[in-house]
Amino acid sequence: MSLIIDCHGHYTTAPKALENWRNAQIAGIQDPASMPRVIDLKISDDELRESIELNQLRLMKERGSDITIFSPRASFMAHHIGDFQISSTWAAICNELCYRVAQLFPDHFVPVAMLPQSPGVDPATCIPELEKCVKEYGNVGINLNPDPSGGHWTSPPLTDKAWYPIYEKMVEHDIPAMVHVSTSCNACFHTTGAHYINADTTAVMQLIQGDLFQDFPALRFIIPHGGGAAPYHWGRYRGLAQEMKKPLLQDHLLKNVFFDTCVYHQPGIDLLTKVIPVDNILFASEMIGAVRGIDPETGHYFDDTKRYIENSTIVVGDDRHKVYEANTRRVFPRLDAHLKTQGR
Amino acid sequence: MSLIIDCHGHYTTAPKALENWRNAQIAGIQDPASMPRVIDLKISDDELRESIELNQLRLMKERGSDITIFSPRASFMAHHIGDFQISSTWAAICNELCYRVAQLFPDHFVPVAMLPQSPGVDPATCIPELEKCVKEYGNVGINLNPDPSGGHWTSPPLTDKAWYPIYEKMVEHDIPAMVHVSTSCNACFHTTGAHYINADTTAVMQLIQGDLFQDFPALRFIIPHGGGAAPYHWGRYRGLAQEMKKPLLQDHLLKNVFFDTCVYHQPGIDLLTKVIPVDNILFASEMIGAVRGIDPETGHYFDDTKRYIENSTIVVGDDRHKVYEANTRRVFPRLDAHLKTQGR
Repeated sequence: MSLIIDCHGHYTTAPKALENWRNAQIAGIQDPASMPRVIDLKISDDELRESIELNQLRLMKERGSDITIFSPRASFMAHHIGDFQISSTWAAICNELCYRVAQLFPDHFVPVAMLPQSPGVDPATCIPELEKCVKEYGNVGINLNPDPSGGHWTSPPLTDKAWYPIYEKMVEHDIPAMVHVSTSCNACFHTTGAHYINADTTAVMQLIQGDLFQDFPALRFIIPHGGGAAPYHWGRYRGLAQEMKKPLLQDHLLKNVFFDTCVYHQPGIDLLTKVIPVDNILFASEMIGAVRGIDPETGHYFDDTKRYIENSTIVVGDDRHKVYEANTRRVFPRLDAHLKTQGR
Repeated sequence: MSLIIDCHGHYTTAPKALENWRNAQIAGIQDPASMPRVIDLKISDDELRESIELNQLRLMKERGSDITIFSPRASFMAHHIGDFQISSTWAAICNELCYRVAQLFPDHFVPVAMLPQSPGVDPATCIPELEKCVKEYGNVGINLNPDPSGGHWTSPPLTDKAWYPIYEKMVEHDIPAMVHVSTSCNACFHTTGAHYINADTTAVMQLIQGDLFQDFPALRFIIPHGGGAAPYHWGRYRGLAQEMKKPLLQDHLLKNVFFDTCVYHQPGIDLLTKVIPVDNILFASEMIGAVRGIDPETGHYFDDTKRYIENSTIVVGDDRHKVYEANTRRVFPRLDAHLKTQGR
């Protein structure tokens, strides 16, 4: 029996007090006298427990997944709001909550950190929060926002040396990053329908254009939402890489880049698993996330991605174990070590 | 026997004099004394003929397609360069060349116009060029750039009333628009690997968010490159539409939105044709375009998309006629009328 590890969950159901505090913080940017203090935010363990037991944990049990790699709500990261100090305070609060959830539910949640990114600010400023989360909170990875401007794309590509301080720390601590944007504040881009998917596609293409993994052979990225458009257009990407005289994508990209299974219908999962080698696919649902309804065509939740794997005729036998557990333990060595201490 | 109509071709092989003139025009923005005149550009019919016969027409004959709907090179539209006057002069030149190609090869090329869009300029300014191309040049459609800024996305969404003057003319003249961006001048977005695909995805989501087709029931858009990420994530889009209380996508979107087959591998075409109703799929290759090489996995050109249709077990029988000919004649009524005058 495989452990079923969902590598992509966000704390989208945090108690309302968190959102209220954030709104007060945002108001405080204009009106410093009203800026809330961190200690003004009070959320009890019972409130955390309830927010999880009634939501993510309930659905994990219903659907049959065991562990969720759990990070702060992606759309609430909103790195474009305020300056580094605003982001830093906010990231610390959100990361602490995910840590507490993981402490309360050690069998089911393992934390991943958001970073206190801010547009135009050196990514190296994120390192203290990153290291605190790894060393003190047991975080097994990070979420890295390639566009902290929120849809204006004012940062350099992920292959730019400006990002290297983060990558050096990722390699040092042997943690991967999920490349995940936050809320779009550009009216052209719907957050979960365009900005998220575009960012995934954009990241893949940046990594194809560059030679980042020559500098960091051990660096690992997860591209969420099934890799954006990349698997669907895999022929295009293979062809573009060839025109750029890059190695085959299996060598140029797939030693370091992995795709999750947050694709919310059977034909999409079938395409992903047909096109991308099984060793590069990590089970995930992003539950409870962008698409919470029931598919009228199937009668099941759109984001119950485990059903698509169970119904797959492509991912069978030992490959299913890879997608559910083995790949994720390999990409997240600190998760693997943590599970081993639990005898799993 | 179906006519095989490729609804997505650009004049990527125009004689070098065109690029030289454009470079002089761009230099002239800074140095008005050096601004070239339109009559300085001299390209003979023989040069046009050669540029087509050795390239697009040769490959059309090799691959077995009959007609290409032919528009100016997308990446050269570069609406972000200069002001409206610069774009206007450039669009007129490019549209005239495609018109001349269509005159020289009336059995094989039918023109579609680029518009003289410019960032921050009212789209209504494009109407004189649009009407000239329809009335004098026999253009059967237009390419509409949802982001004339070239990767900064400073225009409002396609559902905004700012675009309505264009839509009114499209309905009046019964022409569709292909939603197609141009060169990216944002370092985050590779032009053909990220910006094109992102724009397709973005346009689909804008159209899902809005209710544009309530205002324009007869408006028709082609989303190129297989619809960007949309078909791969069709469950996500169905789910997001449901959360927004929109009608089913077949009613909300698919009466007015069509996808081309510019997806450069068999699994992608199979996904597209499995997920999207056959009546919404238009054959296309974007040849000669972004991906010009031979796929080492098949030994055939990546962009020889006819092979994927021929090898499809999904698009068979009369459905193949729809994809190759009937859908395109329906979406482009002026093409249909033109072909009928030719006895086709």
